[in-house]
Amino acid sequence: MKLNATHDPARRSWVESANAPGCAFPIQNLPWGVFSQGGGAARVGVAIGDQILDVTALEAEGLVEPAPGGRVFGSGVLNPFMALGPAIWSATRAQIADLLDAAGGARDLPLLAQADVAMHLPIFVRSFTDFYASREHATNVGAMFRGPENALPPNWLHIPIGYNGRASTVVASGTPVRRPLGQLKSAGDALPRLGPSEKMDFELELGAVIGTGSVMGRPVSTAEAWEMIFGFVLLNDWSARDVQVWEYQPLGPFQSKAFATTIGPWVVTREALEPFRVAPPAREVDLLPYLAEGTHRNLDLHLEVDLARGGQAARTVARTNARHLYYSAAQQVAHHTISGCAMEVGDLIGSGTISGPSLDSCGSLLELTENGKRGDFLQDGDRVMFRGWCEGGYRLGFGPCEGVIMPAPEAP
Amino acid sequence: MKLNATHDPARRSWVESANAPGCAFPIQNLPWGVFSQGGGAARVGVAIGDQILDVTALEAEGLVEPAPGGRVFGSGVLNPFMALGPAIWSATRAQIADLLDAAGGARDLPLLAQADVAMHLPIFVRSFTDFYASREHATNVGAMFRGPENALPPNWLHIPIGYNGRASTVVASGTPVRRPLGQLKSAGDALPRLGPSEKMDFELELGAVIGTGSVMGRPVSTAEAWEMIFGFVLLNDWSARDVQVWEYQPLGPFQSKAFATTIGPWVVTREALEPFRVAPPAREVDLLPYLAEGTHRNLDLHLEVDLARGGQAARTVARTNARHLYYSAAQQVAHHTISGCAMEVGDLIGSGTISGPSLDSCGSLLELTENGKRGDFLQDGDRVMFRGWCEGGYRLGFGPCEGVIMPAPEAP
Repeated sequence: MKLNATHDPARRSWVESANAPGCAFPIQNLPWGVFSQGGGAARVGVAIGDQILDVTALEAEGLVEPAPGGRVFGSGVLNPFMALGPAIWSATRAQIADLLDAAGGARDLPLLAQADVAMHLPIFVRSFTDFYASREHATNVGAMFRGPENALPPNWLHIPIGYNGRASTVVASGTPVRRPLGQLKSAGDALPRLGPSEKMDFELELGAVIGTGSVMGRPVSTAEAWEMIFGFVLLNDWSARDVQVWEYQPLGPFQSKAFATTIGPWVVTREALEPFRVAPPAREVDLLPYLAEGTHRNLDLHLEVDLARGGQAARTVARTNARHLYYSAAQQVAHHTISGCAMEVGDLIGSGTISGPSLDSCGSLLELTENGKRGDFLQDGDRVMFRGWCEGGYRLGFGPCEGVIMPAPEAP
Repeated sequence: MKLNATHDPARRSWVESANAPGCAFPIQNLPWGVFSQGGGAARVGVAIGDQILDVTALEAEGLVEPAPGGRVFGSGVLNPFMALGPAIWSATRAQIADLLDAAGGARDLPLLAQADVAMHLPIFVRSFTDFYASREHATNVGAMFRGPENALPPNWLHIPIGYNGRASTVVASGTPVRRPLGQLKSAGDALPRLGPSEKMDFELELGAVIGTGSVMGRPVSTAEAWEMIFGFVLLNDWSARDVQVWEYQPLGPFQSKAFATTIGPWVVTREALEPFRVAPPAREVDLLPYLAEGTHRNLDLHLEVDLARGGQAARTVARTNARHLYYSAAQQVAHHTISGCAMEVGDLIGSGTISGPSLDSCGSLLELTENGKRGDFLQDGDRVMFRGWCEGGYRLGFGPCEGVIMPAPEAP
């Protein structure tokens, strides 16, 4: 995709808060979300400065019309709009940018203060797939689970390793997360027991939102895969490490990851992220041709994790960058379809935990605490908050992705 | 659940074909499916003898009304009906049995010949989870993948091992199945290559269809889990063994299972299967209390696999029984929710490959051919057909679950 007027760093909005230095939502961002006000119906909106443009109302008024003769913003999720495909995404984005452009002067548009609304899950998550694309994370975790000599599995440099996750428990930022019960068995125990996880963790990830599907039986190229991606969200793949280590052989993580996955409120479009594409890390071995990319699709996206414990002020426990990922979202989606697996509108693709080369750039407590040796896993009442942004002539922010840990339920 | 009039073996239908000895669809069965005729809209139906009762028409005529004032059979999938819960499933079943009962005499009902209609996927598959509940299968496959000393993983006798599968490629019986491309690496190869799978296989399974969901954060008991199950279908979890062995560590099977899963056309209700409940196999170790069952929920369900190769007549390559499964569907669903994972209407739960104690009772070619030593994996053009039935004073059939193998696509 070529850069266009929506990327022009000189552009300003008549919504003044959007022009403040460091604002997460300047006119170059225009991320999509779903909100409600005062218990009303869920509506589609676009963030601008500290406001939300009510796109459901805009469509009703005929100011945007992505599906001539029909409505796509009335269902409370982005899926019907996403299904229209990249040309319409781009045209609608350009149209909204024009409506908000300072050059056109202030207009009477349906704007609401972000402070006055509740944000919801922006998409119906059709399926959730989680990858494992950070070499540093795979090496760190592999060393802890299987020993340093077996840290990086032999397939890892050839395959974007991934597994199917659970769609039913993907929740909106702010939803409390209940500590899971699970089977626990320490190395010295003869038998497993049922109990609340004692090693509850977060995983810092980026989620790619699939906007258009693919046909069963037809693999897609990395270039086609990139075009299928509508945008990206911050994603917390909450994990129970003690449950995971006992259950994951031979068929992979299951209940240790199934209890909750939190995504951020704003889907930052692939188009808005175009100026922030960077080269992937150096490759040790050549990839098979179906994974080759003729262009760079890693993202220079800064990420931070804040942890607030016991009512204390939040402290930043990790700082990293999505550019460290060994496989791009396009490579992951291309691999996802190589068997003929069909992708569908609303599929959510987790990048895998994003860890950088240094200890304080790791995206999980498993790594940050060296499996509990240098600190605790998550406690009840802990609040975890992810931040993400790209920085150029302006800042593209993702909005916070957060959750508070609640005590485990009773056993059934 | 107590047995009731719908289980009475003396009952006969005025649809004469339903009363023939060995008929799969007597009045005691009444399985649910979705069909269309002559390219028309998909409609919900119930099988009776060699006919289908058009329940969508029945609802429009007011002869059944499971949701007073509303319609649940108009959407072309069973999900809206299933969401009404077990009391309504049971009442509707009793009402349909009464309409078809010989005692009431022939009526003017919307009946179509099964031979004249096309069958479709009966449910919108919200999520697909595949378990691994046959001890014989886990032992056989474990020995081949990890050696006889590591055949049964240490967790297997404690946890109903399962993993999340791919919902987007669950297809109706009769849908052709394209051989997948995938990364292949033999033991002697230095590097993987991309190619069509050379070890394509079937897996004989039973699928449980979840009719009502559960609340996130609240695990359900085995008794509650059983009540959530609407019915069962035959299920073929097509697998690419060469892709699987290279990709499955450390996060489990992914593309080796993602290309297709075929389910049979008829959902046989849990209520119809009540008289065929039997004890599970003997347990070597006690299960944790959350998996305990105060009653038997294994099913005495006969299963056969036919394979037709190169235009030749089909031959039966395996005969087994679902009673061999170590974990019941209720135990699997209870485990699925133990972390607080929410179940949803339309979730599909695969039992895992069903293998019995003898070689010819194994549910996969991996086992039947000893990994290709005593026969071939699936060839292009092969047709695989599963049959399943319970046998008492009458027969409850599931209808065939079949697919033909098509050549692999071109690489992207």
